[in-house]
Amino acid sequence: MAVYLQVLEELEAEGEEIISSSKLAQLCGVNPSQIRKDLAYFGEFGVRGVGYYVTDLKESIKHFLGLDKTWNCAIVGIGNLGRALINHRAIKDKGYRIVGAFDWDPFKIGEKVGDLEIICTRRLKEKAKELNIQIGIITTPPNRAQRAANHIVEAGIKAILNFSPTRISVPDDVIVDYVEFSRYLIYLSFKLIHG
Amino acid sequence: MAVYLQVLEELEAEGEEIISSSKLAQLCGVNPSQIRKDLAYFGEFGVRGVGYYVTDLKESIKHFLGLDKTWNCAIVGIGNLGRALINHRAIKDKGYRIVGAFDWDPFKIGEKVGDLEIICTRRLKEKAKELNIQIGIITTPPNRAQRAANHIVEAGIKAILNFSPTRISVPDDVIVDYVEFSRYLIYLSFKLIHG
Repeated sequence: MAVYLQVLEELEAEGEEIISSSKLAQLCGVNPSQIRKDLAYFGEFGVRGVGYYVTDLKESIKHFLGLDKTWNCAIVGIGNLGRALINHRAIKDKGYRIVGAFDWDPFKIGEKVGDLEIICTRRLKEKAKELNIQIGIITTPPNRAQRAANHIVEAGIKAILNFSPTRISVPDDVIVDYVEFSRYLIYLSFKLIHG
Repeated sequence: MAVYLQVLEELEAEGEEIISSSKLAQLCGVNPSQIRKDLAYFGEFGVRGVGYYVTDLKESIKHFLGLDKTWNCAIVGIGNLGRALINHRAIKDKGYRIVGAFDWDPFKIGEKVGDLEIICTRRLKEKAKELNIQIGIITTPPNRAQRAANHIVEAGIKAILNFSPTRISVPDDVIVDYVEFSRYLIYLSFKLIHG
């Protein structure tokens, strides 16, 4: 879905109004029957023999993915990676706003990163309500990740993206996803060996 | 494969010597028939009715994935994200060594990041040979990403990991993968809406 959305956004930027399902499939790198299945839910934007209305389909997928909303995120762990994410334009463009920057380090607290002031992680619970934080992002060193997760969970936040290279334990009603840089490198070196 | 490897490493660290395929499947979150299919290639480490020898299977998967080698990587674009990757322990632990740090900014060139000295991107070609660089990592702003890719390609490097939120064009014999942070956030917000 995210791939379809990206291709549709590029088509819209190029001024395309209608796209055939076979062309869209080709641009997305899937086969036409797959695309018809995936987009069946958005049936009203497909016109048999013509294709899809680019803008309408794009808006509909955005709505389906929740990208017509703004999502408020907090980052816990303001090292280089945390700072990179605070300034990352692509996240903002998709509607994810970093509204809180948290760390334990007393030397960092109060420091400005972009428009944000670094706040003590102990205040996450109080700030989560105030700032309506929906997603917690962990960019701490591995030995701090579980503690960061605990603060996020206690703050009532139900989704966590963990960049720290360690597993975290959370209650069943909290969604966790992991960004593992090494996975991408493994893919590349595998392809270099096996083609 | 990367998931199997991770689970096997955890099992080994816990002192497990043999694991049944059903238990391994459960730990990896796949079904037993899937795991038998995936691991058929490593048949000699599976013993019918007993399971797999943890260490032997782990070593064999590492070899298959190319993780028994060291892979030399260069980073182009030394901002916060580039610095974060240079210091990222999890990458090193998997055998990916960042051996070169490149940037165009004359104020950065010569500066030390960890053990590395930042080198001008124009010298990438010369350094790629000297340092035997196999993977190029792009962490530039989007408007510099294609230029970074061109330098990497000209240096004869055949694999690129692009963190910059823009598409890059490279010859067919160069493998490219993209790390898109927004994809992970889209997954989380989607799950928050649709459960």
